[in-house]
Amino acid sequence: MPVFLNANAPDFEASFTALLSAKREEAVDVDDTVAAIIADVRARGDAAVIELTAKFDRLDLTPETLAFSRAEIAAEIAKVPSEERAALELAAARIRAYHDRQRPEDARWTDATGAELGWRWGPVAAAGLYVPGGLASYPSSVLMNAIPAQVAGVERLVICAPTPGGVVNPLVLLAAHIAGVDTVYRIGGAQAVAAMAYGTETIAPVDKITGPGNAYVAAAKRRVFGRVGIDMIAGPSEILVIADKDNDPEWIALDLLSQAEHDESAQSILITTDEGFGRAVAAAVDTRLETLERRAIAGPSWRDYGAVIVVEDLAQAAVLSDRIAPEHLELCVADPDALLAQIKHAGAVFLGQWTPEAIGDYAGGPNHVLPTARSARFSSGLSVLDFMKRTTLAKMTPEALRAIGPAAERLAISESLEAHGLSVRARLDKLNR
Amino acid sequence: MPVFLNANAPDFEASFTALLSAKREEAVDVDDTVAAIIADVRARGDAAVIELTAKFDRLDLTPETLAFSRAEIAAEIAKVPSEERAALELAAARIRAYHDRQRPEDARWTDATGAELGWRWGPVAAAGLYVPGGLASYPSSVLMNAIPAQVAGVERLVICAPTPGGVVNPLVLLAAHIAGVDTVYRIGGAQAVAAMAYGTETIAPVDKITGPGNAYVAAAKRRVFGRVGIDMIAGPSEILVIADKDNDPEWIALDLLSQAEHDESAQSILITTDEGFGRAVAAAVDTRLETLERRAIAGPSWRDYGAVIVVEDLAQAAVLSDRIAPEHLELCVADPDALLAQIKHAGAVFLGQWTPEAIGDYAGGPNHVLPTARSARFSSGLSVLDFMKRTTLAKMTPEALRAIGPAAERLAISESLEAHGLSVRARLDKLNR
Repeated sequence: MPVFLNANAPDFEASFTALLSAKREEAVDVDDTVAAIIADVRARGDAAVIELTAKFDRLDLTPETLAFSRAEIAAEIAKVPSEERAALELAAARIRAYHDRQRPEDARWTDATGAELGWRWGPVAAAGLYVPGGLASYPSSVLMNAIPAQVAGVERLVICAPTPGGVVNPLVLLAAHIAGVDTVYRIGGAQAVAAMAYGTETIAPVDKITGPGNAYVAAAKRRVFGRVGIDMIAGPSEILVIADKDNDPEWIALDLLSQAEHDESAQSILITTDEGFGRAVAAAVDTRLETLERRAIAGPSWRDYGAVIVVEDLAQAAVLSDRIAPEHLELCVADPDALLAQIKHAGAVFLGQWTPEAIGDYAGGPNHVLPTARSARFSSGLSVLDFMKRTTLAKMTPEALRAIGPAAERLAISESLEAHGLSVRARLDKLNR
Repeated sequence: MPVFLNANAPDFEASFTALLSAKREEAVDVDDTVAAIIADVRARGDAAVIELTAKFDRLDLTPETLAFSRAEIAAEIAKVPSEERAALELAAARIRAYHDRQRPEDARWTDATGAELGWRWGPVAAAGLYVPGGLASYPSSVLMNAIPAQVAGVERLVICAPTPGGVVNPLVLLAAHIAGVDTVYRIGGAQAVAAMAYGTETIAPVDKITGPGNAYVAAAKRRVFGRVGIDMIAGPSEILVIADKDNDPEWIALDLLSQAEHDESAQSILITTDEGFGRAVAAAVDTRLETLERRAIAGPSWRDYGAVIVVEDLAQAAVLSDRIAPEHLELCVADPDALLAQIKHAGAVFLGQWTPEAIGDYAGGPNHVLPTARSARFSSGLSVLDFMKRTTLAKMTPEALRAIGPAAERLAISESLEAHGLSVRARLDKLNR
């Protein structure tokens, strides 16, 4: 049984703070191991990657077989039933349509001094996507990472996807194919991250690495950050549902369980204005947990980190929601847009009872790579912008320099940066001659 | 004398690669010290901050004097000569006008299925700006950090600016005042970063920390990343000037020195199509270094990391420039826009000979916090976006769910996420009933 709180109870603040600060993930210290792996890959390239893959993934590779061949990809893809292929294609089309709108605009203008100012966006030249193996090998994540990179205009896009024991997920290869990624290396772990960041004889280095992974992958991404760009380091998944009593308890129970089934550390919270409804949802969760395939995962998640919070009104729900700053937020209320207007911090919002969070995981259009662990306070989900960078532009005319230069010179002098000031002064002197 | 290279010489590739990979910064390992400081501030709050400030900055504070009072700020600001105030105000107005244009737009649309999709941008609730003390205490950096945050709509903005030995830079307080920041704590180092990230009895925690700092500050920012957002970890400054022979060698020499004078680890590179011009610039640098106030800094920077590279034509210059991916790039050529079109990776570009880089440091309008160490390949200068985050939105109708839901359900099943699929199926069943 998860915690059942009433927001107006005298001990609520203490219980809510405890809920917010619950440490849901064991910090596994793999940093030394990862540092050694990265150093090894930098020093020995392919040979290190191949040895580490044999050791960790029980798979013997050669430089020639690090990547899947076109024939291998075609053979694997052919195994996918047409219904699944159609579903992936529909999802890809919707994700592409959404992300197409995120392409940022360049700007260039001339101000009153005659100075031309602006900026220009451009894609990173090369990006590498990490796709975990085993249980967390999600083809949907391939689409969510690769399509924004493609829309951004990234020229070279590669995937690293470990195949422990040689077991391949054909759907991952199909998703890569649909997203237009031809190069898929069957390597994983810190060695894959190191190979993408520093390059080997066979694997060309990339500029940006994205995608989820285990503790080794996360530690490796942290270490190569700076050498290359990375996306966020994601924590366990979370959902907050705000629901009034006019909902089907079974639907809300399934929405809560759809996060809980990801991970024993996932967190599912319901905030409701109706205690009876809250109890009905909790009962529906319990019933469903008796039969759910992943009950061994969803059960502990719900028991250890789940919560039902009863509030006075939706305004109070909005305040609590902002303190949680959830990764996923469902607003199952009569007027979800009115409630949305009161909410400041959330990764993705699902409006109304016809929008289960799972739609967003696959085919809604928005990205499913989202900020966890309250980081929606300061960060955003993955987008086209993550695969682009902006160059600022400035072009002075003699007249503009005459207008602006003296202030720059003055500030340079006050910061004791003589050459800065002189570089402006030399030009001003020429103008005044 | 810095390296003088000809891009068509047989040994050029080796020399250029050496130049690119020169390690310009000693990695000082302060991580354990910083970890202990952060733990201390988390455990003991104000008391730890006050003790550490006494120890490192030789300054005795109380919880009441951690921040400057309004009267103290007014008294310090009154010391600033009116010419400097006017220069700061002009700079602030120009920076604000530029960043005003960076405000991102919200979006909301309905697609063919009837699904409403979109996103909404919002500011982080609170941001903390770090302003170094001593030599690197630049009022211009206060403007460059605070104004984008203000334009983003950040409600609470604080500054931490150490005052070693109690020495205050009145221009820093004036810049804060002009940028509208009222709360300035006279603390620095890892303890200031920890206080902003975790909060103390007196200092409320923030959501985002930006601003430059020494090795301790950088290590602390890396450590609190995740708890709060941070900007980049900046390395030593760099400039690349691409110039044809129709430039004044003295101007270009000053532009190169205006980076070199920042730091012995700074790097200044000239790429030119004319060897004679390159030699004239090198000679002008040498002459200027005899008298430059900061010759003890600029001299080693130019000698150890400076370079003049002679190329065949501007197309070759553009290729080399992209391999450098410079923080600052000056295009001192007849048609700078034509050359710009060939360049992909740079933090900020200064077009034409009337645009010395120093203009951009102070009063051009674009931000001077820019990606260093080749990170312009994948990252951008500071902007309004760094103080905002995006929430994605999705709202299905029954019709939209009927169109999209089956694909989502199918993919959920193929990823063995039963509850995901059931949360969609339960709604579809209701529709089909």
